[in-house]
Amino acid sequence: MTVTRFAVDLGTLPVALDLGGTFVFALSGATAGVKHRLDLFGVLVLSLVAASSGGVIRDLLIGAVPPAALADWRYIAVSLFAGVFTVYGHSLVDRLHHPVQLFDAAGLALFAVSGAHKALVFHLGPIQAALLGMLTGIGGGMVRDLLVAEVPAVLHAEVYAVAALIGAGVVVIGSWLGVPSAVATGVGALLCFGLRLVAMRRGWRLPVAGEPDASSGLHRR
Amino acid sequence: MTVTRFAVDLGTLPVALDLGGTFVFALSGATAGVKHRLDLFGVLVLSLVAASSGGVIRDLLIGAVPPAALADWRYIAVSLFAGVFTVYGHSLVDRLHHPVQLFDAAGLALFAVSGAHKALVFHLGPIQAALLGMLTGIGGGMVRDLLVAEVPAVLHAEVYAVAALIGAGVVVIGSWLGVPSAVATGVGALLCFGLRLVAMRRGWRLPVAGEPDASSGLHRR
Amino acid sequence: MTVTRFAVDLGTLPVALDLGGTFVFALSGATAGVKHRLDLFGVLVLSLVAASSGGVIRDLLIGAVPPAALADWRYIAVSLFAGVFTVYGHSLVDRLHHPVQLFDAAGLALFAVSGAHKALVFHLGPIQAALLGMLTGIGGGMVRDLLVAEVPAVLHAEVYAVAALIGAGVVVIGSWLGVPSAVATGVGALLCFGLRLVAMRRGWRLPVAGEPDASSGLHRR
Repeated sequence: MTVTRFAVDLGTLPVALDLGGTFVFALSGATAGVKHRLDLFGVLVLSLVAASSGGVIRDLLIGAVPPAALADWRYIAVSLFAGVFTVYGHSLVDRLHHPVQLFDAAGLALFAVSGAHKALVFHLGPIQAALLGMLTGIGGGMVRDLLVAEVPAVLHAEVYAVAALIGAGVVVIGSWLGVPSAVATGVGALLCFGLRLVAMRRGWRLPVAGEPDASSGLHRR
Repeated sequence: MTVTRFAVDLGTLPVALDLGGTFVFALSGATAGVKHRLDLFGVLVLSLVAASSGGVIRDLLIGAVPPAALADWRYIAVSLFAGVFTVYGHSLVDRLHHPVQLFDAAGLALFAVSGAHKALVFHLGPIQAALLGMLTGIGGGMVRDLLVAEVPAVLHAEVYAVAALIGAGVVVIGSWLGVPSAVATGVGALLCFGLRLVAMRRGWRLPVAGEPDASSGLHRR
Repeated sequence: MTVTRFAVDLGTLPVALDLGGTFVFALSGATAGVKHRLDLFGVLVLSLVAASSGGVIRDLLIGAVPPAALADWRYIAVSLFAGVFTVYGHSLVDRLHHPVQLFDAAGLALFAVSGAHKALVFHLGPIQAALLGMLTGIGGGMVRDLLVAEVPAVLHAEVYAVAALIGAGVVVIGSWLGVPSAVATGVGALLCFGLRLVAMRRGWRLPVAGEPDASSGLHRR
């Protein structure tokens, strides 16, 4: 009984987190595609790739093949729905101030905790699980930005990978303390999402090596 | 008897399609390398990477490791031959009007059907097989374009990923109807190749979200 | 007895080579990050990604999951140490003339031989092992350059992939001749490193297809 309940818990929680992360990253991918004036199918490809890259990288690294994003039709359906919704409902999406960044922050949070959680389920060590969570979180956005030829947000955005690492770390510490996974992943995701949002609003930045220089070459290509 | 014949059919058909796709994508990679004035070895690396990325992505995703492109020396030989041929016979390749795009379209078609076919052999579902075929088809060209710092053709070219999806879809539907694989893959590949060629010639494009705007920012970096 | 000794030899040598390659590629990634004025955490992410990509690509391709870079905490520790050292000790790193290129050459050499060695341990054929060594060597630098939006060095630098292939080839030939792996990998790594350094100093280049043209479009984007 207990074993079954535990197995279900381990099985359904990552799926719910993954589907949520898939949806918001697909929105961010589709919105980036619309912004770059891709055609309908280009937008769908970008939402599919942005949504699945984080989870696919995680699954390839822990040896869970075929990756969930491919084995389970719901991921594909969710990605395509987000893409179509963005294309035909983009006046609605447009009303949000910075939709790509908002969805990106939510996807970062959901994938960071789902990556850490799934890594623990696959018996990786605590440091590895936290880092894998971070990589899962930043993977989708990195591939999305590379495909539209922008420098990945993770490399210059305010408190980006740190937020993912903290969210993933909460899951790992929670599992170590015996906190129920639903609580730990919820707290981790909220902390990551909130930290990223506040950092964006206030322009929080980590120190840069070398002398301070206002005319930074950071965004220059 | 029947089982053996079936196994042989499943085994040899993807290899033939893969080797064909490998050859034409290697030509497209080498031609892009020559165009960017890379040295001899850079051209060979680009043909190797362009030729094998699609199949390697497919094999990693379905868990067929080591990937065929690595386990089988013929893939490597075919890629290197295409690279050397392009460098020393490029006046011949040059006579074709848009050689990169032509080889790219052929590679797209061959990898799309081979990806869908191999995914079915590995017992993936029909939707997954069609999407995996599409990803196999667009993977090689995406990596090639990323490496020479161009926005991947898949994101802005005329009817690109759609053509791959249709080719892969024909294979999936054919398998469902019990059509012999050789026929279904042949029809799928021809349909994808023809559709892409006609779309290029006529400049067919899918609708773009938002108001129509002649001075599109699509190719802008 | 002999079997155990052999297994230990096969097991520890790649780890030592991998950790060395990880350290120098992490230095090259961190130095590139400092050069592009990334913040502290961006630098750490870049050193982690640059350091682990080569080995991760190798391990995914031969089916050794989870990859060593993830399963073993020492890789992560070495990468992060290199990143922190670069940020806080970068005046020291700066004194070297071309630190990114120097560390890159060392990482190329160490990963090329470790990739070839591990491929042989996983029973890949000689041609595959040599090419996998080359790919392992060039993978980390390619991902690093893509992330900071530069054309990968492998595609235009002097004698880059050739050097990796020669280093990997020495390991394969050495294994075929029965030379102890430590000797073969040492000779291979030194040959690759030396060849790359001399080629950089003297500006050795391989022939470029087409007519010679001084105003080469090679570095143009």
